[in-house]
Formats: sequence, C-alpha cells, structure tokens
Amino acid sequence: MTKVGFIGLGIMGGPMAANLVKAGFEVTGYNRSRAGVDRLVAAGGRGANSVGQAVRDADAVITMLPDSPDVRAVVLGEDGVLAHAREGALLIDCSTIRPDVSREVGQAAAAKGIQALDAPVSGGEQGAIEGNLSIMVGGAAEAFETAREMFDVVGATIVHVGGPGAGQTVKAANQLIVAGTIELVAESLVFLEAHGVDTGAAIEVLAGGLAGNRILDRKAPAMVRREFTPGFRVELHHKDLGIVLQAAREAGVVIPLGAAVAQLMAALEAQGHGALDHGALLKLVEQLSGRGQE
Amino acid sequence: MTKVGFIGLGIMGGPMAANLVKAGFEVTGYNRSRAGVDRLVAAGGRGANSVGQAVRDADAVITMLPDSPDVRAVVLGEDGVLAHAREGALLIDCSTIRPDVSREVGQAAAAKGIQALDAPVSGGEQGAIEGNLSIMVGGAAEAFETAREMFDVVGATIVHVGGPGAGQTVKAANQLIVAGTIELVAESLVFLEAHGVDTGAAIEVLAGGLAGNRILDRKAPAMVRREFTPGFRVELHHKDLGIVLQAAREAGVVIPLGAAVAQLMAALEAQGHGALDHGALLKLVEQLSGRGQE
Amino acid sequence: MTKVGFIGLGIMGGPMAANLVKAGFEVTGYNRSRAGVDRLVAAGGRGANSVGQAVRDADAVITMLPDSPDVRAVVLGEDGVLAHAREGALLIDCSTIRPDVSREVGQAAAAKGIQALDAPVSGGEQGAIEGNLSIMVGGAAEAFETAREMFDVVGATIVHVGGPGAGQTVKAANQLIVAGTIELVAESLVFLEAHGVDTGAAIEVLAGGLAGNRILDRKAPAMVRREFTPGFRVELHHKDLGIVLQAAREAGVVIPLGAAVAQLMAALEAQGHGALDHGALLKLVEQLSGRGQE
Amino acid sequence: MTKVGFIGLGIMGGPMAANLVKAGFEVTGYNRSRAGVDRLVAAGGRGANSVGQAVRDADAVITMLPDSPDVRAVVLGEDGVLAHAREGALLIDCSTIRPDVSREVGQAAAAKGIQALDAPVSGGEQGAIEGNLSIMVGGAAEAFETAREMFDVVGATIVHVGGPGAGQTVKAANQLIVAGTIELVAESLVFLEAHGVDTGAAIEVLAGGLAGNRILDRKAPAMVRREFTPGFRVELHHKDLGIVLQAAREAGVVIPLGAAVAQLMAALEAQGHGALDHGALLKLVEQLSGRGQE
Repeated sequence: MTKVGFIGLGIMGGPMAANLVKAGFEVTGYNRSRAGVDRLVAAGGRGANSVGQAVRDADAVITMLPDSPDVRAVVLGEDGVLAHAREGALLIDCSTIRPDVSREVGQAAAAKGIQALDAPVSGGEQGAIEGNLSIMVGGAAEAFETAREMFDVVGATIVHVGGPGAGQTVKAANQLIVAGTIELVAESLVFLEAHGVDTGAAIEVLAGGLAGNRILDRKAPAMVRREFTPGFRVELHHKDLGIVLQAAREAGVVIPLGAAVAQLMAALEAQGHGALDHGALLKLVEQLSGRGQE
Repeated sequence: MTKVGFIGLGIMGGPMAANLVKAGFEVTGYNRSRAGVDRLVAAGGRGANSVGQAVRDADAVITMLPDSPDVRAVVLGEDGVLAHAREGALLIDCSTIRPDVSREVGQAAAAKGIQALDAPVSGGEQGAIEGNLSIMVGGAAEAFETAREMFDVVGATIVHVGGPGAGQTVKAANQLIVAGTIELVAESLVFLEAHGVDTGAAIEVLAGGLAGNRILDRKAPAMVRREFTPGFRVELHHKDLGIVLQAAREAGVVIPLGAAVAQLMAALEAQGHGALDHGALLKLVEQLSGRGQE
Repeated sequence: MTKVGFIGLGIMGGPMAANLVKAGFEVTGYNRSRAGVDRLVAAGGRGANSVGQAVRDADAVITMLPDSPDVRAVVLGEDGVLAHAREGALLIDCSTIRPDVSREVGQAAAAKGIQALDAPVSGGEQGAIEGNLSIMVGGAAEAFETAREMFDVVGATIVHVGGPGAGQTVKAANQLIVAGTIELVAESLVFLEAHGVDTGAAIEVLAGGLAGNRILDRKAPAMVRREFTPGFRVELHHKDLGIVLQAAREAGVVIPLGAAVAQLMAALEAQGHGALDHGALLKLVEQLSGRGQE
Repeated sequence: MTKVGFIGLGIMGGPMAANLVKAGFEVTGYNRSRAGVDRLVAAGGRGANSVGQAVRDADAVITMLPDSPDVRAVVLGEDGVLAHAREGALLIDCSTIRPDVSREVGQAAAAKGIQALDAPVSGGEQGAIEGNLSIMVGGAAEAFETAREMFDVVGATIVHVGGPGAGQTVKAANQLIVAGTIELVAESLVFLEAHGVDTGAAIEVLAGGLAGNRILDRKAPAMVRREFTPGFRVELHHKDLGIVLQAAREAGVVIPLGAAVAQLMAALEAQGHGALDHGALLKLVEQLSGRGQE
C-alpha cells in the first residue's frame, strides 16, 4: 500500500503528511486553504484541488480536521471522501471528535466497502514534526494492521484500544486527565507562591514522587513564568471537554472533577483567553485568589 | 555528627531508622508501642524507654509521627523532645502535619537553641525500606546542610524548598496533586469501561502522552483489578486534604478541584473505607455511576 | 378564539386540556396512546386520530411533549402541526425543551404564517389540575396577548419574559435553581441529622429566615420521611439539566454550582433512581456520607 | 426575671438590647468600644465598664459577639462572664460560632451552676431593629422556657431545635442554604442576561414557582442593579462557611455543593470584596463568564 490521500494539512496534518512523503509514501493532499497544499508539494507530495481528487486513487485516506462537523462534511458530504474513495480503501481519521460521530463514519464507510479507523493523536505540533505522536486507535484489528506502516512513520506509542470509536473515547479520557492535571498543578503553584515557597525547588521534588506527571515536567516551568503561548489552545481543549461531558453523560458515568475543570476551561474561553495555551488555567486560579495583575 | 534520637518507629519510621543504623549512625529509638523499639534493637540500634532517654545525648532528633497533635505532644510536651534535647542539637520532623504547627515547633526549638527542619517525605513504605524517599525540606539552609548526610541515607530526591514550614506546604501540594490525579484516573477508567474500551491498552497509550503520570504507572493496574490494599490509606489522605484546605484558606488561595476531591475522599472515609488504599476513589466513581456490585 | 387543538394529553397536558374544556373552549385532542384521548372525551372534549385531525380547524394549537425531539417530530414532521394547521393559527408549545429548538420551531412556524410561543410551565401535576401553573412565555407580545385567555385558564403566574426561546431560557434557570435548592436542603438535612438535631424544628426555623424557599416548604418534610414518590421525576430533571448546561455553554456562562448538581442528578439517574422524585438527591447525600440503609 | 447583662452592643446587639429596655427589662450593657454603651444608655439602659460589672447581678446574660475566639475570651476568660455571673443565672449566646465551642461554653457554664443556651439569629440589622429575628435555640428545654420572654421581644420565629450546640448547627445549615441559594440565583441571572432575557420579568415568574425563595424576593433585584451594600458581609459569610465545612467534616457528612460555594465565597474574600454584601457572588459569576466591566 503506497498511495495516501491526505485531507487537512494544518499544524498537525501538514508535518504528518510530510513525514509520510519522506518515508516513501505517495501522498496527495488537499486542504481548504491553498497554503497547506503548497507546503506539501514543496515537501515532495502532490497537490489536489478537491477532496475527490485527493482520494480517488488512494489506498488509504487520512483526515486531520478540527471538529465533528468538519469530519461529517468532508467524509460524508455530497462530494466527500466516501463519494470518491475506491472500494477496499482504508479511511484513517486522526481528528479528535465525538465517539458517536466516529462510529457513524465507520458505518457509512463500511456500507461503501471501506474500512475505517478512528486514530486521534496526542503530542502536539512538536510530536507531529518529530513523528513521535501517541496514537490511540479504534476499529477492526485487521484494518489496524494495515495502517500500522503509516502509524509507525508518524507515531511512537501506537495502541489499538478497541472497536470503532474507542480511539476517540481514549482521547476523551486523555483530555480529561490533561485538563485536570493542569488545574491541579495550577492550584498547587498558586498555593505554593502564596506561602512564599520556591516553586522551582517544589516542582523538582514534586516531580520526583507520586505526584509526578508530564504537566509538571513540560508545562509547570512556563506556567510559573506566566508564558502561555500555545502549545494546545484553550479553545480546542474547551471543545474537547464538551466531548468528554457528552460521552460521560451518554454512558451514565459521573465525573465530578471532569465537570468542575470543564467549567474552569469554559471560564478561560469566556474571558477571551481561547487562543492561549491551556496552561493558562493558572491565570484563572490567580484571578480567583485575588493575585497577579488582574 | 553520629548520634541520632529517633521517635516514631512505625511503618515509615522503622525502616528509616534501620537504614540509618546500617549506614553507621548510632541510633537510639523510642516508640509508644514496644514492638517498634524491639525491631530497631534487632537491627542494631539502641532502645529507649522514653522520649527523654532517646534524645538526651543526640546530635540530631528525627520524629516521624501521624498528625499535628502527636508532634505537638512529643516535641513541645512537658517531658518531650525540647525538654530533654541538648542545646545545639538538630530536630528533623519527618511527619506530615500542618505548616503552622511546623513553624510553631521551629520557634519553640529556636528558643531552646535547637535548630529545626520540617522534612515530610513521599514514597511510601517501599521508599522507606529502599531508602529512596522524596524529601521536601523547610528550615534554615545551614541546618539543611547539617542534615544532608542523614537525608542521603533515607532519600533519593532531596530538596530544600524554603524556610520553616515550607516542607509541609510542598507536601500539602503533593497530596493535593496525588488525590486529584487518582480521581482523574478513576473517572477515566470508569468512563473507558462504560464505553467498553480495553483499559489495559488505554493505560498504556495514556501513559505515553501528555496525560502520563505516576498514578497511571503505579496504581491504575491495581485500580482496574479492584485491589485496594494499602499503600497509602484513605484515612491519612483525608487528614492531609484537611491540612491542604486549611492552608489554602489561610493563604486566601482558591482551589476548586482540591475542594471537590476533598469531598470525595471524605465520602470514602465516611463510608467506612478509611483503611483502603486511596486508589479506592475508583469505587466511589463506580458507585456514583451505578456500576460495580455496590 | 375558541377552537383549540391539543397535542400531548399526559400527566400535565391531560388536566390542562380538561380545564380548557371546562372554561368553554372547544378542544380537540390527540395523544400517542389512546387513553389520554379517551379521558379528554370523557371530560367533554373531542378526540382526534392524528395530529392533522386535531389541528386542522384550530385557532390555537397547544403542545405538551416530553423533549426536544418529540416537539421537532410533532411540529415540524411530515404529517405534523405545521403541515396541517391553518395560516393565522397560534402555536403554543408548553413543553420544556432546548431554547434553540424553540427558536427553530418559531421560525418554521413563521414561514407558514403561524405565530408561535414557547410557554413552559412550572407547578407540577397538582398545578396542572388546579389550574395555577407558573407560565414563562417567550415570543411576540401580540401573540402573548392572543394566548392570554388560555393561559389564564391553566395558570396563576403568567409572565411574558422575552422573544422566541426566552420562555425556555427562564424555564432552564428555574430547573437550575430547583435542582440546586433541593441539593442544598438535602445536604443540610443530612448534616442536621448527623448532628442529632430535630429536623422538623430546624425546617420550621430555616423556613422563617433568609434560607426560606419552596423546597423547604413543600418537599423537605417528605425528604425527611424518605418518601420519594414523584412529583417530578429524576429522569426529567436530569434531561432538563442537560439543557441548562448546553445553553450555558453556548452563551459562555460559567455555572459552577449548576454543573456540580448536574453531576449529582446524573448519579441518581445512573443508579437507577430515574423514576423517583427529584427530592431523592437526599438519598445520594446519605449514601456519600455512609448513612442510611444503602 | 428582669435583670439582663448584655455583652456586645454592635449592629445586631445594640438594637436587641434597646428592644429589651423598651419591653421593660433592666439591661446593663458592656461593649469593647464605648459608643455602643453610650447608645444603650441613651435608650434607657445602664452602662458597664467591664464584663464583670455588666453581669454581676444579672438574672440573664446575653452575648452577641463576632466569632468563636471572642466568645471564648468573653465567657471563659479570666475576667469573663463565668467568673462574675451568679449561680443560677442564665447565659444566652446569640453569636454565630462553632457548635463545639457552644458545647464547650455550655459545659463550663454548667460547672458553675449556670445554664447556657446557644441562640444564633437570622434576619440581619433590620430584623434586630424590628424585633422579628428568627432564633434557633440549642440547650435545655427548661432554660429555653426561662429565656422565652426575652426571645419574644427580639424575635418572631423562635424554635428550640435541640440540645447544646444545636442552635449553632442549625445556623450553620442556614448559612449553607443562604450562600448556595445566592450563588444559584447569581448563576441564573447571568445566564438570563447572557441570553437577553428580561431579568425583572424572569424574577417574577421564578419567584412564583418551585424555584421561589427569599433571595429572589429580597436580594435578586439589588443583584440585578449591581448594588452590593451590606446587608450581610462576604467576610462574615466566608467565616460561617468555614464553620459549616468543619462541622460537616467532623460529622462525616459530604456536602459537595456546600464545598463548592465555600470556594466561591473564599474567592470574593480573597479578591478584596469582604466588605460587600454576599449578593456580590453575582460579580464573580460575571467575572468568570467574561462579562461586566471586570
């Protein structure tokens, strides 16, 4: 399998597609704005003027889009992926969307003789560029095996977590833990500052024990410096927590901490901080505590 | 400095004292129940029949006690450490207690010409036995340097985080993050189970990304198996979250997630699960979600 | 205006339609199950075999249905209200549904020359029987004036709160306050019982001060007796809090207490208590606190 | 019984003492600052220069003080009430303090042959002036009967709720419900404003149904106008919620909504709004939602 149609050549999709080109895949890409396509062509890929043109001859179609409605439109739409992809092709959706939409896409694909995987990723722009994303994959085991050679190019931790939608469900859990951990670290840092403790030393010792986590390692120093350049934007995490809450509600699972941190992320978004890094939850704890400039 | 008086030879203090003996320190130990003293003697230390006897000739006194009132009684009490320790001795309190009590102890010690450090630890019984605890130390830099040779015997990550009480403040933050992370992992696991996802695979991929943390590494597999043998008991974590809430309140710091998880830990305690491992927060999420046997 | 088509003759709609008959309106009713129609006929109304038959000659059409999809189907559906009602008729939807669906219905109606009001009610079965419901009405002032004579028959407090959807928005706020107040009263009652206080006396004195509210007046005594026969069912309140959360999210409004109580109501529902009265939030507080039989 | 010693002649105690004078009681008052004493003398009472002088000949001693430490000092202190009051006198503490401190006071009083009641009040300055406070009384039934003639002068709803400390426990529940209800109303008002709904009309219809409560009746209009002149100050309600949380913790009662609103009140206090009316919780909801000027 060598021909890949790639839809969505943005911050994440662009470098992923480029890495596939570099690894020897024949990648034809389409993006709503032309710049993404031009970058792919410069990297050695082919450009397409439409979804149909990108996917027509593809053995595998990879989509990397912002939200559920985008995936619905691009995959299920009149002139979309399923209307043009050939029978027997494989559809790999790397977008972070609602699990039920992934299942809906999977069923629509199956009806056309196309196997589908939901394969959301974690690791950010840097992980996409370096090709060491974590990939949580839902769908048929057979399709997972077929996709493996492509996943190996773009990711480092690649796990088949279950049937259709399972990748999205795990990604939702991922976003719940990440948001909650950022908030816990933010509360701790403001608490330590208020008590006059050296936060640099505290981060070191906290990271060494049972409290250790990736947020302490990768984000806490920037949070202490009040640097909130994304990284991962508040507005996207806010969207993702909406998916978490809905999926929990549908499954009858009670998530008190998830619901609480979703309100805090919603506050950041409502206050106009949607374009900041999600580490900005620290700003909110500061504001609530009457500390900092605002 | 070689003579150490050690008060509190329980699950944590016992192995810590034994490690000091093994490293060549002359340790005289006292414990309320005789069994702890006997174990120390068997390990090559000396036994004392009272706090006074244990600390009279000591260069350094180490205390490892359950809660603030215990430390107050043992250190400040009529027949306590400060009544018997010699001027110039060093007091190292490894208990997890209220920061304000640590500061009170420090001042009372200073008035007797005794330097004090608050040095709570993280790492559990296993860390105490293996001598690789994380130690968060508050107090004077000079006293920290003096204590260093002892800390190096019992710990692996040893950080001086600030003045008197700062060690306790960082330990409080540690307990806030640990409790919150356990709850986030618990909500995620029940969420994943409810959606029929393979939790073993999910834990693997979650641990590989930004959601990665020590709870996923060390506790999640036992939580999935519903094994809640401590480890660290709910009743102690419930006590510690009381310290967190009080210290946050006093400093005017707002900790919405900390307050929420404190209610959940209080629920476990109220339901009679105080002797279980704190990973039992998963039981509560299950119960709230109408899942599991209860 | 005297001819009324009434769709949805259940616990609420049935007595409302009967009261309109009693007041002299010519009411033709339709209900999915025949029993509701039969009761209306027994009360002096006319029965219809379809939505179309019920609304064809009506000056006003009143709908009282469980949820948003029901209203969409009955009003917008192929053989629905808008397909059969005559131009110039007035549509009054008394269901509690999503504000955006009310606005969608309003626009679709306007396109057919039909004016629409959203007019959710509060007051329960008893209020419907006694004709003293609270009615919160959204839509055009002129349509409100036209509907007034019908509202006066079924309600006591009748307020025009704004344009299309505003009635639903106020009803959402109503359900937020009601759920939250029940939970506050539940927490207080369990707190008082745990402290051995006479709850009957406490309810009396609490009701007399700034803490006074309708839940203390009408529900607290039954809650103390653990009587949870509805009244208003947990499953419906759970649905309504879903509307509240979504409408708050869309408007960028942060509702920490609303989000917290929504999790608690979701827990009751998940535990299989959906058919109990919403006062059963007390059961949950008891369970969390390790009190009561379960 | 006619001679009353009254300690604490502030905003609440001043008018209560004056009403007792007016009703024919012989009141001797003491206050830390002289102005309170002067006002009592002007109203026809007697002034005292010390606690001892105020209570020496009294049949009943009434205390109205800010917090637990004040009551401890004034009642139990070296030169306090119990040191000077005669055997057989009745002590009525109207302060809002911790239930355990009330019980401690009761025991100390009993040891001196003095009966004690805890009798916190609700109703604010206006209720104190008009003599229609709600009074929640803990202690012996016999003592309650003796105190009745005084309660009837200062209060309208007077209920004996249980043994020593029970009055404080009910007052704690009162403060929990009041704070929570204000927050629910605040969330609802911001929600309604964000959706462009006429809040005046909404308050009217909400007050008429199951959502009806005293906060809607008495505080919501001022909240809509952003008028936060106390009334009851945030700093006092913050203190009271501390009592609620501690009393719930001691009794093993889980209060998720109580804990959440306590964080919000703590935020207002931390932001420097301690002197505003507790209705200012609306400011916080606005701030979180990115609305209003700040």
